[in-house]
Amino acid sequence: MTSRDNQESGRLAPAPESFLDADLVDEIHLGGVNAARRKLLKGALAAAAATAIAPSHAADDPDILALPSWSRTLGKPVVTTPYGQPSPFEAQVIKRQSPGLTQTNQASVAFTPLQSLFGMITPSGLHFERHHQGWVDIDPTRHRLMINGLVDSPSVFTMADLLRLPSVSRIHFLECGANTGLEWGNVAVPTVQYTHGMLSASEFTGVPVSLLLERAGYDRQRARFLLAEGADGSGMTRTINLDAALDDAIVAYGQNGEMLRPENGYPLRLVVPGVQGVSWVKWLRRLEVGDQPWGTKDETSHYVDLMPDGTHRQYSGIQEAKSVITSPSGGQTLLQQGYYCVTGLAWSGRGTVSKVEVSTDGGQNWRAARVEGPTLPKALTRFNFDWVWNGEEALLQSRVTDSTGYTQPTRNQLVARRGTRSIYHNNAIQTWRVAADGAVHNVQLG
Amino acid sequence: MTSRDNQESGRLAPAPESFLDADLVDEIHLGGVNAARRKLLKGALAAAAATAIAPSHAADDPDILALPSWSRTLGKPVVTTPYGQPSPFEAQVIKRQSPGLTQTNQASVAFTPLQSLFGMITPSGLHFERHHQGWVDIDPTRHRLMINGLVDSPSVFTMADLLRLPSVSRIHFLECGANTGLEWGNVAVPTVQYTHGMLSASEFTGVPVSLLLERAGYDRQRARFLLAEGADGSGMTRTINLDAALDDAIVAYGQNGEMLRPENGYPLRLVVPGVQGVSWVKWLRRLEVGDQPWGTKDETSHYVDLMPDGTHRQYSGIQEAKSVITSPSGGQTLLQQGYYCVTGLAWSGRGTVSKVEVSTDGGQNWRAARVEGPTLPKALTRFNFDWVWNGEEALLQSRVTDSTGYTQPTRNQLVARRGTRSIYHNNAIQTWRVAADGAVHNVQLG
Repeated sequence: MTSRDNQESGRLAPAPESFLDADLVDEIHLGGVNAARRKLLKGALAAAAATAIAPSHAADDPDILALPSWSRTLGKPVVTTPYGQPSPFEAQVIKRQSPGLTQTNQASVAFTPLQSLFGMITPSGLHFERHHQGWVDIDPTRHRLMINGLVDSPSVFTMADLLRLPSVSRIHFLECGANTGLEWGNVAVPTVQYTHGMLSASEFTGVPVSLLLERAGYDRQRARFLLAEGADGSGMTRTINLDAALDDAIVAYGQNGEMLRPENGYPLRLVVPGVQGVSWVKWLRRLEVGDQPWGTKDETSHYVDLMPDGTHRQYSGIQEAKSVITSPSGGQTLLQQGYYCVTGLAWSGRGTVSKVEVSTDGGQNWRAARVEGPTLPKALTRFNFDWVWNGEEALLQSRVTDSTGYTQPTRNQLVARRGTRSIYHNNAIQTWRVAADGAVHNVQLG
Repeated sequence: MTSRDNQESGRLAPAPESFLDADLVDEIHLGGVNAARRKLLKGALAAAAATAIAPSHAADDPDILALPSWSRTLGKPVVTTPYGQPSPFEAQVIKRQSPGLTQTNQASVAFTPLQSLFGMITPSGLHFERHHQGWVDIDPTRHRLMINGLVDSPSVFTMADLLRLPSVSRIHFLECGANTGLEWGNVAVPTVQYTHGMLSASEFTGVPVSLLLERAGYDRQRARFLLAEGADGSGMTRTINLDAALDDAIVAYGQNGEMLRPENGYPLRLVVPGVQGVSWVKWLRRLEVGDQPWGTKDETSHYVDLMPDGTHRQYSGIQEAKSVITSPSGGQTLLQQGYYCVTGLAWSGRGTVSKVEVSTDGGQNWRAARVEGPTLPKALTRFNFDWVWNGEEALLQSRVTDSTGYTQPTRNQLVARRGTRSIYHNNAIQTWRVAADGAVHNVQLG
């Protein structure tokens, strides 16, 4: 049969045979793509089965076998959407807030729907949000960046100045230090969007901090720290280690090819690869060079790690190696036994991902996952793993080893060191329990 | 001065000194970011100069020195936009249609605003569009992919089937074979959006074609070609070389981390890395294995290269190495002499970018540009080049050499081989003329 036959008949031929047995068609990955589609598919699967198994009956369902409207009509003109949007069928793939997580919605969190995403780039429209006094639409012509402190030439830049300077483009992950924070308290959050969704990754473009500081003439004898300050109402201020800033930090205006989104700091944010998100100061208006940490409100009352002995770790900003299976994950359901492509993300604030392993029995046995290249430093790495589910209970875990040789700890290993009173920097191995009925739940193993 | 001083005073300190002399502030890159901002900045530049040079006068302008409203008020709550959007100040960074290019707007082109973009990823909302009968919103539950022809097991896949299979994620460019096509006819199109804007790049996720064909049991003795067929009204059909398809082609559902956009083939398109865009069949509904090319309407009446002797080249689908400076580019204006970061894109359908060189004198002298890594196969590569403009006329060019050793030709070299009657596969070196008044124009050099 050729395409011309199809076109003349005005019909798609009846399906000769389903690749997967129709009664093995599952919806786990569709649950992964979005909830709306999962629901829609429940109805469609029966129809699909009719098509695949019993074409003679399928003719009874004109809605399935008729050439669909989009194959028979004139479509929409170009630039119907001068700035394109997702399909209306993807309307459930959105950032989501956890109600009650904070006292006000301006100092809250919107989580990235990791269960629905692919690859290593997060669409900018789905990048997670964590604000301290809400987000703002800054007029770029009125925005300035000041560089002051221990420098020979304090200076102020317009956006025009910055856009004219030499730039770099780099893909990096951005993770809130509090990501997976609720898991410290033995609260089993239901979905990966809420357990790990303060995690996103983008290609950032901007001016290296090193270039700005060298041209400002920073004091090479005394300078040890950098203060980054935001222009939003919270006056977010964070101390950055100067060596880290000189190594690979960027004053960024570009994200995934275009200007930053307002929720992500438009027109300017600091990019501090490998370091927790709060240090990537949004709406960046000032960098001050100093010789000691500032101890601002945002690094004393917040973002410290409470330890078992009552002390706290401060300036513990580097995001250690971590991984998570994004599908199958909590809230999804495996409808049938058989093959699944288990997929997830791995990353390390200290370098590249060297290896990802997956266990389906709660960590007793591990096999290597396929790592999608390129594996970039301080970026997300997608992994995939072949698994045939036999219908029995399974405990899915992933663990990453990074280029320093460090391996992601179990929850018990982490708790032995850090206790359970912390909020920040939980990089323990995540466990998803697949029940015999196919339902996937978040559980905490040792 | 610390951040607390600033917060207590309720003001940003007056700017002590501009990094660039205020009267050297230019707007070329802002023109590159968007036209609206360029216009806005004309007013703002005077104010910025006042701030930088004469802080004592700047106090007269409360609109500049007052702490802006966004630093004094409560911002917007999280998930104000469950699916985020660009800043309203970027409203001019959009896809644009070339009026009259085709007889109907459903068989037309929307160009990507390359002059405004950064890095190597194109935002999905700005991906170029080329449709043959308009674009459609397909219900994914009703979409099917058939595999037939010279295979042991013809089969039909639902989206659920496909999403369950092993997947890969890869960053690739996508260029229409007709990109830069008007330049064949000595028509100097004004901007890079219109000369080169049928070019975009994304991270694609999907099932390798090789996996689908191997599981279908394709006829290894006879199979040489693949027919790809779309589900839109045009019934787009293209013959694909089987070796190329088995090498790295993907049946893709994911683009830049989420599902494909409707204009880009939602829910399924073929990805044929390095090959012209028309072969990346959108709304893909069928792959047929065969032993000879099909010679369909879309590969006989269209997408053939008219040669000087009246014959035509057919099935010339591979996009040869090409590069273009995206800023400064046609339609932009350099307001002042001094330093510019010349930036652009390079790519090759045959491999990776090995080297990019830039000339500012129309090709008499060349210097190496900085290539932003990683340089990925059949992907866009961003390059940057330091240039100090002395105020005299300049002729800006870039040329790429790819991993096969092939170097992008001059226009004369290309025309000597291919004449001027063609539409497709113009990969000649592009020239932007910077006039003494700073205006940048598209010119055709030898």
